[in-house]
Amino acid sequence: MDRFKDIGEFGFIDRIAAHAQRNRVLCGIGDDCAVMAAGQERVRLVTVDAMVEGIHFVPQAPPEGVGYKLLAASLSDVAAMGGKPTDAVVAVSASGDCDAGYVERIYNGLFACADRFDVAVVGGDTTRTSGALVLSLTLTGEMARDQVCYRSGAQVGDAVYVSGTLGDAAGGLGVILGDVDLPGKVRTALLQRHYRPEPRLDLGQALAETGAVTAMIDVSDGLASDLSHICQQSGVSAVIRAAAIPMSRAFIKFCEVSGKEKLDLALTGGEDFELLFSVSQTQVNKVEALAYSICRIGEIVASDGSVMIEGEDGKRVPLEQLGYDHFGGG
Amino acid sequence: MDRFKDIGEFGFIDRIAAHAQRNRVLCGIGDDCAVMAAGQERVRLVTVDAMVEGIHFVPQAPPEGVGYKLLAASLSDVAAMGGKPTDAVVAVSASGDCDAGYVERIYNGLFACADRFDVAVVGGDTTRTSGALVLSLTLTGEMARDQVCYRSGAQVGDAVYVSGTLGDAAGGLGVILGDVDLPGKVRTALLQRHYRPEPRLDLGQALAETGAVTAMIDVSDGLASDLSHICQQSGVSAVIRAAAIPMSRAFIKFCEVSGKEKLDLALTGGEDFELLFSVSQTQVNKVEALAYSICRIGEIVASDGSVMIEGEDGKRVPLEQLGYDHFGGG
Repeated sequence: MDRFKDIGEFGFIDRIAAHAQRNRVLCGIGDDCAVMAAGQERVRLVTVDAMVEGIHFVPQAPPEGVGYKLLAASLSDVAAMGGKPTDAVVAVSASGDCDAGYVERIYNGLFACADRFDVAVVGGDTTRTSGALVLSLTLTGEMARDQVCYRSGAQVGDAVYVSGTLGDAAGGLGVILGDVDLPGKVRTALLQRHYRPEPRLDLGQALAETGAVTAMIDVSDGLASDLSHICQQSGVSAVIRAAAIPMSRAFIKFCEVSGKEKLDLALTGGEDFELLFSVSQTQVNKVEALAYSICRIGEIVASDGSVMIEGEDGKRVPLEQLGYDHFGGG
Repeated sequence: MDRFKDIGEFGFIDRIAAHAQRNRVLCGIGDDCAVMAAGQERVRLVTVDAMVEGIHFVPQAPPEGVGYKLLAASLSDVAAMGGKPTDAVVAVSASGDCDAGYVERIYNGLFACADRFDVAVVGGDTTRTSGALVLSLTLTGEMARDQVCYRSGAQVGDAVYVSGTLGDAAGGLGVILGDVDLPGKVRTALLQRHYRPEPRLDLGQALAETGAVTAMIDVSDGLASDLSHICQQSGVSAVIRAAAIPMSRAFIKFCEVSGKEKLDLALTGGEDFELLFSVSQTQVNKVEALAYSICRIGEIVASDGSVMIEGEDGKRVPLEQLGYDHFGGG
């Protein structure tokens, strides 16, 4: 008997991919959102995310943060297409012994995020379970059809950019789990990035409107992993410069105190929800003219879908060779 | 500390109702689907349903039936608005010990239903949990804005109709759980209604197009409960005639053999997924002209939101007085 843990998603993704080959489905799987035609010129975006207690959030997590992040993670998926979110529905499965106050605080965080980003929470289903608390959220968005930023359009010669700073959310998790002696301001900054991630919706829409972006994804699994998704789906490789990876002072301080290697954590720490995108070489001025914090970190090159890192000595090494095991950890 | 089991959905519905008061949200909660404006003349419908192992389906349930019904129940919600389904996303949370073959068979049922009703399954999220298998599905549909059949429009004097026959799905559950000695054809018919419910999509769309329907809901909780939803949301009451409740031969046979009171079970058995609707007295010819199996079972009257049943002696008794405790059981 095959167990769920052995075969992972056991072909679900492949089956959806085959099944979604229908009229009006422009992209059924393999991107941040599914994309459906809505009239001639618009598309509807849909993304679903589930979070399970004990797997996606630790018991000591503040429930408001859990709720906020549930929606924020989906908003980031819409941002990564260049879209605008419209409405969400939520399914909650909780055990009879689950503290109602705890679940209510999760909702508080969810609605706070919805209010902040003007998303209507329009429905839900609440069910009983005998097991762990399970939250799933489906978010719908929309945008112009000719502006959708898929993962698959990166071209050799494109410049690679990332927004904001990387590693902060991983630092926040380190603060929660570890016994790290940090100044209060540093702790607060990292926890904020972990529990109140900032989906880059305005930036995503602005980038889509430039028409200069050839591929885009959000940094949810970690830069190394997410950039490899762009490379594999575009049939290209990428070189990123170690010295160019943007890091916050709080994150650098965290690494100093905790003894973590900062480049490793910045490349592999997930849930920063920044945008990672490639831009045609001739159009970089369009994205650099935008009033957002973005950083050029590398280039798209011709190769086999891998991601290479270029050290200060100019040497390029594939990330796998640096011990990145499936990009899951540093 | 309030426990989840004590306070039920602890205000979630009320909070969504308040939150959904936004532009473009025509109906945020309290109907079979949320309804969002999509341009001037169309609407988008969204419904979410979760099913939990051990709560919504028994361990001996064939997994294909579980998957089929997960989608069929949502399709029935779209049918109850008069809409056409378009696409679905699914979130699955399974434990590491869950048999992958079992989950794959759930998918087989889900995709069989999707193919049958031409719904694109466009995305999913598969997560690990330590507890029971949890499936949640979000279905999107669409329709003309001026044809949406809400629950709230029933008027005094309207005729009340239901499609198909009632109680069969409850009979099917009885076959699964009980040791009932029934002919093979009867067993098969009842099990089919339980595991392969027939969402009345064509009928729902045809009814919406007539413009004669004043309120509509699907029979998911049981006729008594679902009719009371229409009554409460429309501010009216309903009288139904006991003798007019449509029942199949298989269901009647099941009641004879198992000793169940057939009227009770037909009124309270859930998951038949038939359509229950009210029609303006002057327009009943429009719905009776449709080539579908529908049955006139009663009338809308002025009163306090209750449902009354009229026996063959002409006496009207509120269902509560017959021992229907919150319509949850006979």
